Amino acid sequence: MHILILGAAGMLGRKLAQAIAAGGLPCAALTLADQVPPVPPAPATGQCVITCLTTDLAQPAVLASLVAGRPDVIFHLAAIVSAEAEADLDRGYAINLDATRSLLQAVSALPDYCPKVIFASSIAVFGTPLPDIIPDHHHLTPRSSYGTQKAMAELLLADYTRRGFVQGIALRLPTICIRPGAPNRAASGFFSGILREPLAGQPARLPVRDSLRHWFASPRAATGFFVRAARLDHAALQGQIALNMPGLSATVADQIAALARFAGTKATGLIHHAPDPAIAAIVETWPQAFSATQALDLGFVADSSFDAIIAAYVADDMPQG
Amino acid sequence: MHILILGAAGMLGRKLAQAIAAGGLPCAALTLADQVPPVPPAPATGQCVITCLTTDLAQPAVLASLVAGRPDVIFHLAAIVSAEAEADLDRGYAINLDATRSLLQAVSALPDYCPKVIFASSIAVFGTPLPDIIPDHHHLTPRSSYGTQKAMAELLLADYTRRGFVQGIALRLPTICIRPGAPNRAASGFFSGILREPLAGQPARLPVRDSLRHWFASPRAATGFFVRAARLDHAALQGQIALNMPGLSATVADQIAALARFAGTKATGLIHHAPDPAIAAIVETWPQAFSATQALDLGFVADSSFDAIIAAYVADDMPQG
Repeated sequence: MHILILGAAGMLGRKLAQAIAAGGLPCAALTLADQVPPVPPAPATGQCVITCLTTDLAQPAVLASLVAGRPDVIFHLAAIVSAEAEADLDRGYAINLDATRSLLQAVSALPDYCPKVIFASSIAVFGTPLPDIIPDHHHLTPRSSYGTQKAMAELLLADYTRRGFVQGIALRLPTICIRPGAPNRAASGFFSGILREPLAGQPARLPVRDSLRHWFASPRAATGFFVRAARLDHAALQGQIALNMPGLSATVADQIAALARFAGTKATGLIHHAPDPAIAAIVETWPQAFSATQALDLGFVADSSFDAIIAAYVADDMPQG
Repeated sequence: MHILILGAAGMLGRKLAQAIAAGGLPCAALTLADQVPPVPPAPATGQCVITCLTTDLAQPAVLASLVAGRPDVIFHLAAIVSAEAEADLDRGYAINLDATRSLLQAVSALPDYCPKVIFASSIAVFGTPLPDIIPDHHHLTPRSSYGTQKAMAELLLADYTRRGFVQGIALRLPTICIRPGAPNRAASGFFSGILREPLAGQPARLPVRDSLRHWFASPRAATGFFVRAARLDHAALQGQIALNMPGLSATVADQIAALARFAGTKATGLIHHAPDPAIAAIVETWPQAFSATQALDLGFVADSSFDAIIAAYVADDMPQG
């Protein structure tokens, strides 16, 4: 099987490439493309030939050349993230919508070709007012340009799927936690920061009330979603190609309690409650939980607890020493 | 007030221009643009200066020049219709999505300008499975490229509205009936044909069962929706800018009974039941009724009966003689 990952240098792209190279999917050729140089995964045990390409996915000709080799599965994770898409309207639409469209147009131009296209969407397609538990077929009311672009791309993917050009699947990802690396300024950043920083002996700020509830998946679980989607019989979707991924519904207090169990009060004592009304105003409108019935029925698996999420971070991502 | 109509040469565009010129909206300047020459409406009683432009709305520069005069209200009715959008994928996206985006980009490029943009959307944004009565916030699952393009344009309009560039309103129009003019080959064509042709003494084919139920608005009611939207206080939408328009839920048998009351069995005898499985397969998946609660609360008014729809057609559209 030939697999193409667009956005392969991002956090999830890297982990997905590693999982595939380690045998997570049968793969003879793995092509990794991104605007920054993709990191080739650790040597595979099998015969997987890995090609890394640094290229501009905003250019339709680049996408045409990437699909010319007719990959069987295309993972499309290339995106302008939420805060940047809100700050730079044109760039957000150029990547999150137009590049997705260029990809679909490039695929549709090739005769006798209908690859699986697995698209990283987001729970940002949903906006207030929201029920406590969001059902599978809740209507889309994005409250950000990022969420709008993801919702538009989902519709486009569904149309190209209906017309037989691709077998599209859109995975609406929960908030990823614990996100490895340095703190960032995303409104959601503190969800990872209040665990990651204390685990490293560093202080962390908590800008919201600890009763706030949200919807989470670990990087390990999210990687598993993409692998599961690649293995899925597309007919099982019955035309409903956008799936709310399962997750863990947890409060900030649940996160902190898990941290206490893992690292004690010395770690939780590093969390300083510093209310930030601007961040609270954004985060209070976010989803708290999903039923994710369809995805669970299709075999997508969520994290079992925040204890498991912390253990996965320590095993997979925490810097040594 | 300066008003711009895009797609002014279409059936609804012409009627809307006539209604405005006749005083339906306060209007000092009315600009009519379409790819085919717009027909200037009958002379207005007031001081409305009418300009007709034949131009290519697929060109971003054309849209930029049309909005440079800063119209207060822009009615965007330019569209590739359902059957053509399904047959010509590129052209459907070019007009139904890209031209809408070019319009919004042109408006957003002008400082201190936030016009009302009233967009002709469609109940084609909804697809099966559907409840008997579709609530206001039903999820969008278009089953056609036309419906996909309308749904994507709605999302885009909502994002540009949220960002303060326009005051957008998307009107999801029912099937228009009785559509004046010659029979066409649209799957929905028979809904008008079985009334229009017998009223003219001509035979008509009925390709579906007469118990089939659907959702209708007369051209007169649809024109009223656009006028109502222009008068609406945008804040009353509370951010929910896509509205299911009210309509008349009626079966084919209801249509035929109204025809019998108006023109007798001589007219209804001209309807020949000629089942067409291909047309039935399409039409059977269409919506039967909507609650349209939000639109009714906002003062949008539906036709009261098929008797009223027939009377409106005879008064407004039926060829003389």
